[in-house]
Formats: sequence, C-alpha cells, structure tokens
Amino acid sequence: MAALTIKDIARICGVGTSTVSRAINDDPGINPETKERILTVVEEFHYVPNNSARNLKVTDSNTVGVLVKGRNNRFFQSMYADFEQELEQAGYDFTFKEIAYNENELLEAEAMIKEKRLKGIIFLGGMIENPDESLARLDVPYVLCTVAVNTRLAKSSSVGIDDEKESYKIVDYLIKKGHKRIAVIVGQRRDYAVGRRRMQGYVRALNDNGIIFDDSLVIYQRDDLPDYSEANGYAVMSEFLKSGKEFTAVYAIADLLALGAYKAIYDAGKKIPQDYSVMGFDGIEITKYMHPALTTVRQPIEKIVKESVDIIIKEISGDRTSRQVYYETELVEQDSVIEIL
Amino acid sequence: MAALTIKDIARICGVGTSTVSRAINDDPGINPETKERILTVVEEFHYVPNNSARNLKVTDSNTVGVLVKGRNNRFFQSMYADFEQELEQAGYDFTFKEIAYNENELLEAEAMIKEKRLKGIIFLGGMIENPDESLARLDVPYVLCTVAVNTRLAKSSSVGIDDEKESYKIVDYLIKKGHKRIAVIVGQRRDYAVGRRRMQGYVRALNDNGIIFDDSLVIYQRDDLPDYSEANGYAVMSEFLKSGKEFTAVYAIADLLALGAYKAIYDAGKKIPQDYSVMGFDGIEITKYMHPALTTVRQPIEKIVKESVDIIIKEISGDRTSRQVYYETELVEQDSVIEIL
Repeated sequence: MAALTIKDIARICGVGTSTVSRAINDDPGINPETKERILTVVEEFHYVPNNSARNLKVTDSNTVGVLVKGRNNRFFQSMYADFEQELEQAGYDFTFKEIAYNENELLEAEAMIKEKRLKGIIFLGGMIENPDESLARLDVPYVLCTVAVNTRLAKSSSVGIDDEKESYKIVDYLIKKGHKRIAVIVGQRRDYAVGRRRMQGYVRALNDNGIIFDDSLVIYQRDDLPDYSEANGYAVMSEFLKSGKEFTAVYAIADLLALGAYKAIYDAGKKIPQDYSVMGFDGIEITKYMHPALTTVRQPIEKIVKESVDIIIKEISGDRTSRQVYYETELVEQDSVIEIL
Repeated sequence: MAALTIKDIARICGVGTSTVSRAINDDPGINPETKERILTVVEEFHYVPNNSARNLKVTDSNTVGVLVKGRNNRFFQSMYADFEQELEQAGYDFTFKEIAYNENELLEAEAMIKEKRLKGIIFLGGMIENPDESLARLDVPYVLCTVAVNTRLAKSSSVGIDDEKESYKIVDYLIKKGHKRIAVIVGQRRDYAVGRRRMQGYVRALNDNGIIFDDSLVIYQRDDLPDYSEANGYAVMSEFLKSGKEFTAVYAIADLLALGAYKAIYDAGKKIPQDYSVMGFDGIEITKYMHPALTTVRQPIEKIVKESVDIIIKEISGDRTSRQVYYETELVEQDSVIEIL
C-alpha cells in the first residue's frame, strides 16, 4: 500500500522535511504555530513516521479487548477461541491480556484501551466493587463477564451466573444426599470475588437446612500458589486431611481444585466416593474423565461469551442500554457423590 | 482523531462527492480512469469511508498472527498467553485463529495476513509438506512452530521438537521396562503430521529392540471426534479393549488421549499400572493429578514460544537467516508404568 512519506507531509505543509522531523520529535527549535500546523496534518493524514512505525499507532482499529483477571486460568483460557470466533463473525478483532489477581484492572484497562486503540472492552473474572463509578472514566463501552459486582443495582452491563445461588444448589444437593459435615475449598483469604460469593451460597444452604456453620471445615486456597489450580487444591486438601477433621463430603468451588483434591485423597489412601464424596463447579470437559467422573455444575460458557460479545457490539454501535444477563448452571450428576445415612 | 471526510477526497481529486462514492462502491457508471485516480488517492491518504469503517482497514498494524491447526486443542491453547506476553514485550500485538484439520493453512494464512494486516505469521501445529515452495508466496515473514515439515532441508525457519526421536524415547523406555506388547494410540488415519511422526518413532524403537511390529496394536483416533481430545482417547481405547487383544502397555501420543484411555481402562474394571502401564506425550500440568500420575515427556512450551517469537521479530526486522531450532523433551517419570518380567 502506498503510504505517505515525510516529503509528502513537508509538501502539504509548505515546509522542509527537517521541519517536519523537528515537529514530530518535539524539538524545541521550532515555531510552536508551525509545529501545531504540521502535527495537525500528520494526524489528519494518518502519517506514521518510518522509524517509529513499530510503536506508534495513529491509525484506527477495530478491536475489542478482553482483560482477564487471572494468569493461566484454564477456565478463562477455554473461552478465548469462542471470543475470537464471535468477534470475528461480527467484524471485529479480538485481543486479550491476562493480569494477576492483585493488579488493578482499571489502570490496566486504560492502558490497554490506549495501546490497542480498543473500540470496547470486556472484563473477564475478578471483582469490581462499584463498576458504575470506577469504570465511568473509561472512554469506550465495557461489559462485565463473570465479574463479581457488589450490587445488582449497578447499571453496568454484565453477563454471567449467580455464583451465590448456584453454589447454594450444590451444597443443598449434598445435604439432600445426607451429608452434614461438608468441607469446602474456597478462594484465597483475600478473595472477595467469585470465591466469596460461592462461600456465601455454602453458608446459606447450611443455614436453610438447619446445619450449624463450622469454620474449621472451610479450606482457603493458598496465596503462594496459582489460584483455582490443581496445585492449590492438592496442597490445601493434603493439609486439611492431615488435620484429622471429620467430614463426609468436600465441595471445591472450581473443578480444577477438585482434581487436585482427588489426588490428595488418594494419597491419603482414601476412596472417592466411598470415603469422601466430592463436588466441583464449572463443568469443564475434563470432569468426565476424572476417576470417578466429578459431579459438578456446568456454566454455559458458549452462551456467556456470545451474550457478552452481542452486548459490547450493541454498545459500540451506540445502544447504551444497561443489560444484566444471568444464566443458570446445569447440574451434572456423575460418580463422585454417594448418598449416606 | 481528525479523519479525512469524503469531501476532502473529492476536493483533492477535483471531483464531486458522489463521484468519490461511486468509485468506492465500484459503481459501473464511472469513467475507469477517474475511478483509478480516486482510488489511488483514497489509498494514499488512508481514507476510510464512514459507513464501512467497521469492515475496512486501510490502516497500518503492528500485529503478529498465530494460525493454529486444530480447534479447541488445549495443548495449543495453553500457549496463547505466552505468545501474547512475549509479543507484547517486543512491542507487537498478538492475534490468533484456529482452523480445522482439513482446512488449507496457506489460504487461511493469506486471508489472515490481509484482514489483520499482519507483520508476520507463526504457524502452530499441522503439517506443511514443502514449506519453502508453498509458503513462498506469503508476503510477510513466517515461522513454523511445532509444524511437521517433510524434510530437514527446508529453509523455512522452524521451532519445535523432533517428534520421531522423542516418541522413540518413550517406546524405548517401555521396552526397557520389559514391555513387548505395546499398544499405541496414534493420529487419525489421515494424520500425516505429528501423529505420523510419533508413530514412526514407535515403529523404529520396536525394530531397534528386535520386536516385530504388529499393526493390530495400532489404535487410530476417530475422525468424527475432536482429535487429540480425551473423548477420542476414551472412545478408541474402549473399542480396543473390547477386541480382546493382548497387551501390557499403551502409549498415547498426547496426554489428553491418555486421560481418556485411563477412563476406558477403569470402565473395563482394570487397574493402572497393575494391569496396563500407560504413557503419554506433552507433559501438560494435569498429568500430575491423574490417578495414577501419568509418566510422559514434557515439551518445553515456554522455550518454544519464546524462540518462535524471537525469530519472527528478527525476520520482520529484515534478518531473514533461516533457523531450525529443535528442543529435547524431558522424561517425567510418574506412577503409570511398572516394570514387568
């Protein structure tokens, strides 16, 4: 493609190329008005100086970004291909960035919007206390996808599941199967997002069934291991088993944690579900091939991705209606839970 | 950002705005020379018509694309975050596209380069018979990452492992443990890429150890299920177990296939490794948490990604030295193989 050269810009502005160069490089030896005039032309004609073309993007983009709270979280990673496909079908490019749990998503979002010249941004995972206020200063539309927000009264568009309610469903299921001493692997202690929500569902289900909450059955993930990982589930379950606490079932708030817990239970010479029933959360493919297959609830990932993309595109097109879409999970009864007396 | 309007283009060309519109919309009622002249200006000044701004990108990009042969292949998907990070550190954007096994990567690459205005492209997975010839017409640099090429004499830059040699290592290990009847779960019948290479390693290891190849121990993946998936490993292993063939070990050419095979073996009432030893390939995280933990070889994914990015950036910067980088895998001895007499 023919691109403008510095000579073209010089000709349009009626100056020499060195003057254009000085304007671009912010050289003090140039008349401010001349500089202003040159930079206006540079911008108007989308001129990209050759030597800094790699880092400067004064051009337009057609990109929607997904900012992911969590590094190497395979539940989120399994959604990227769907995001790419849905966005492509709508004529947009997809880009993503994973950030650690303790990074500030607002600052990261601002940087990402600027660097990638995003048309819209989807937040994936994490917790945003007051999205209406904290995200108001973003200058592109945004959608919260499986983000825990502090209140349903938020006007920001969001898509996901009701973590508290779905977690309640799991614990209620275990109780109906006769379990009363139910251990729970929750988030890290500082997890005020999905981990906290799912724990609240656990507490409420116990209450509604007349079972007194026992905090010694709450197993926090370690903060020196990746959260929601097999490694974390394995480490904390191994530790818990050594404590000698009595329990008949363990509910891990993510399938990958349950996978780690399985190994800890086997290492301790115990059987699933004969010695301990186990339940997970998410419904990822691998649960079918665990030994025994894990009873869990399945999140409708495809629907969640599609709806998030639909909303961001509507918002980019100017329709700023606030939408909150919550899906139900599906209970997947497999082989890791037995009824007890 | 100030952008050119259709009026600016009309003024520059000395025609009316409707003529510009006709030129852009390929209207037959316009003098071909006038049209040509207008389109040259449109291109030169990077003019983006307002109403089609969403789909037209006549602007510059700074993007490296990864074209992935395989949909929902979690081994490849686990590399995306690394690609994003490595490219970002080098000042580039990352985009990816997954295509099915039977799609033509050359055509897809050409489309992707055009649509996303790529600066370079990395092919991930699959098989390219004669890359030097077939990829010569791509007008951006490319790198083959874990792509099976037909000859080491190819000049195209490539990064990966030597699949034949690493596969040999696995089978040789099983033989040294006393196994002679080793079943192998390979690619689909039409898989001439990595699946074929790994099978060749299997055959050569048998030969070198004086064991006669028995084709009834070769288990092909089904082509009506996703390849290299747990579902495929489960289906074909279940079928194989019903056949009543005698064997003491099974080598699955991908860990996820082994995971499916585990379930098939358990469903048949058999134990691992007491009844059957199992080995995998890839060394993904989950193998540690399988029951028993899977003995496998680990591919150095991080190194492979980093090297691929380093090479594509060198090539984009004009250094077209041909590089072929092959890494060794690491044998990860876990609990799924026993020595037999």
